[in-house]
This record gives sequence, structure tokens and C-alpha cells, in this order.
Amino acid sequence: MGAKAENTKERIRQEAYRLFADKGFKEVTMTDICKKTGLSRGGLYRYYSSTGEIFSEILSKEYVIADRIRKQESAKAILEDMLWEIKGEIMDKELSLSLAIYEYANLGNGEFFNHIHKNAKKRWISLIRYGMEMKEFKKVNAEQVSELILYYYQGLRMWSRVIPFDKQVAEYYADTIRKMLLM
Amino acid sequence: MGAKAENTKERIRQEAYRLFADKGFKEVTMTDICKKTGLSRGGLYRYYSSTGEIFSEILSKEYVIADRIRKQESAKAILEDMLWEIKGEIMDKELSLSLAIYEYANLGNGEFFNHIHKNAKKRWISLIRYGMEMKEFKKVNAEQVSELILYYYQGLRMWSRVIPFDKQVAEYYADTIRKMLLM
Repeated sequence: MGAKAENTKERIRQEAYRLFADKGFKEVTMTDICKKTGLSRGGLYRYYSSTGEIFSEILSKEYVIADRIRKQESAKAILEDMLWEIKGEIMDKELSLSLAIYEYANLGNGEFFNHIHKNAKKRWISLIRYGMEMKEFKKVNAEQVSELILYYYQGLRMWSRVIPFDKQVAEYYADTIRKMLLM
Repeated sequence: MGAKAENTKERIRQEAYRLFADKGFKEVTMTDICKKTGLSRGGLYRYYSSTGEIFSEILSKEYVIADRIRKQESAKAILEDMLWEIKGEIMDKELSLSLAIYEYANLGNGEFFNHIHKNAKKRWISLIRYGMEMKEFKKVNAEQVSELILYYYQGLRMWSRVIPFDKQVAEYYADTIRKMLLM
């Protein structure tokens, strides 16, 4: 696929992301996405056949941990970059996909989320193990800490739509993880 | 209010809880609750004027921490009882109110949840401070640990409806909190 096509797909995902965050999964139609992107129906369907396909691509977007571990970067530096990105996400309540995730899962896509969750967990476990090997992280149960990182994040994402957050909330999150991992 | 009336209210809340967990907030009507409880419309409206009133009473149900602190019970024993109760809730995915909470909040009840959340946090902070005074808990930032406890729990409650959980998930939760607090 050429660069232009990749750009168009990225633009579709970005606009669809906003729609899903705003309305949940069920209420967003391909027509909504046409309107938002300015694409014709034919233009949109050339890239994606359904809102489900777009939604799962958005969620599958990988963080690039594996690559940085391969380059032997500092585990602490990788962690700090992840936390920085996550803190931004926590404060950006308009872009929380919690409701859309909930609806999509309840339409019979549980297996898909199981897969997404397992991959996210695998990535965190690999970073934590790497940090322990490099003697940058404390000796912890990597699986247990990974679950804390993921579910605490999900709780924050959901509640960011329910109650007002101040910056402290995201700082506490990052700080809790630092305390658990860093010497 | 007499004991019989209290019993009826408790029964209404229990049946409504199941309906909210199953269908979310918006789709549950007073008629549904009549059917489930076997009460007539007049019978139901004698106790509650709306589904919102029932829902907020369910959510306001307090844990009895303050009472046990007053009686100078062991902080560790109180914590263990709380964790035991929470572990049961985590595994009982059918009774997760996450979707209903989300919907109710988005109907303009954000202030109500802010209140619920603040109270829950206050209760945890009071237990943690008490445990530190009694030298049963480590010296921690009580507010920070309370947020971890609450949001990690909310993340688990939401995802319990999205992916399958094994018992390990709830054990990790309880164990993480123990490690943070107990000497």
C-alpha cells in the first residue's frame, strides 16, 4: 500500500477514534465516518468494510517496546516514556474508549479483547523482566505488576468520563508504578 | 419505617441491582422492577419514585469501616474483611454495575459520582491512617494508595464484563494491596 493510502487510513482511524470516544461503538455508522473524513462511501469502503474493522485496528495499535528492548535502551527510559504517554491519555477524557470497548465486547467480541489484553500484558511483562535483568528494576512478580498497571489504567479511563479529574490523579498513577519498579 | 417496609426496600434494591447489572441504567424501567419484585406500581412507588433513586441508594451503600475503627478493631482484620468482600465482587461478573454507572453518569449525574467516589476514598484513607497509627501498616501516602485501591478495582469490574477472569486476577489484586500496606 502506498504512502497516500496509509495516510488516508490513518486519518480514517483518527476521526473514527473521536466518534467512538464520543458516542460509544454501537451508535457510530460508516456514514458518520464518511461525513467526518469527507470521503465518499466508495472511498471509505476501499479501506475498511465495517466500523468493527476500524475499531479493532485502533485498539491493536502497538506500543513499540519490543523494538527498544532489542536496541538495549535503558528500561527506566522506556518506562518513563510509557508513563508519559499514559498520563496524557488519562487526562484526555474526551478520548476515552471505555464505553465503546464495553459495547463492542458485548456484541460478542470477547475473544478479540482477550487477545488485546494478553498482548498488552505480554509487552509489560517483557519490559519488567528486561528491567530486572538490567538491574534497573526491583525484583517483582512481573505478571502481578503488569495487571496492576493495566487494570488501574482501565479504571482511570472509565472514571475519567464519570467524575472530574485533576492532574494529581495521573501523577499518582505514574508514581505508584515507579515506586513498585524503580530501585 | 417498620421492619417490613425495610425488607421490601431491600428486596427492591436487590432485584433492581441485578437488572442494572444486566441491562445498564437506561434500559431498566420501573415496570421491569415491578415485574421482578411482584409489586404493583402503587406498591413500588410507595418506596421509590424513580429508577435513579433506587440506583443511587444501591451505590451509596456504605461499608462499615468507621464503626469498626471506633471499636478499635485490628486494622489488618478490617482490611482482610474488605479484601475478602472485594474479591467476591470481582469474580461475580454478572453483578458488575460498570455499564449502568457509566450511563447514569452521562445522564448528568456526575456530581453524584464525585460524591460517592470521595466518600469511598475517605473511608479508605481513614482505614489506612488508622492502620499506620496502630503500627499495623507501613508508612504510605494514604491518598495515593486509596486511589490505587479504587481505580484498580473499577478497572477490574469493567473488564470482568469484557474478558474472562480466572481467580488469580482477584488474588493479585488483594495481594498487591497487602504488599503495599502490611509490614
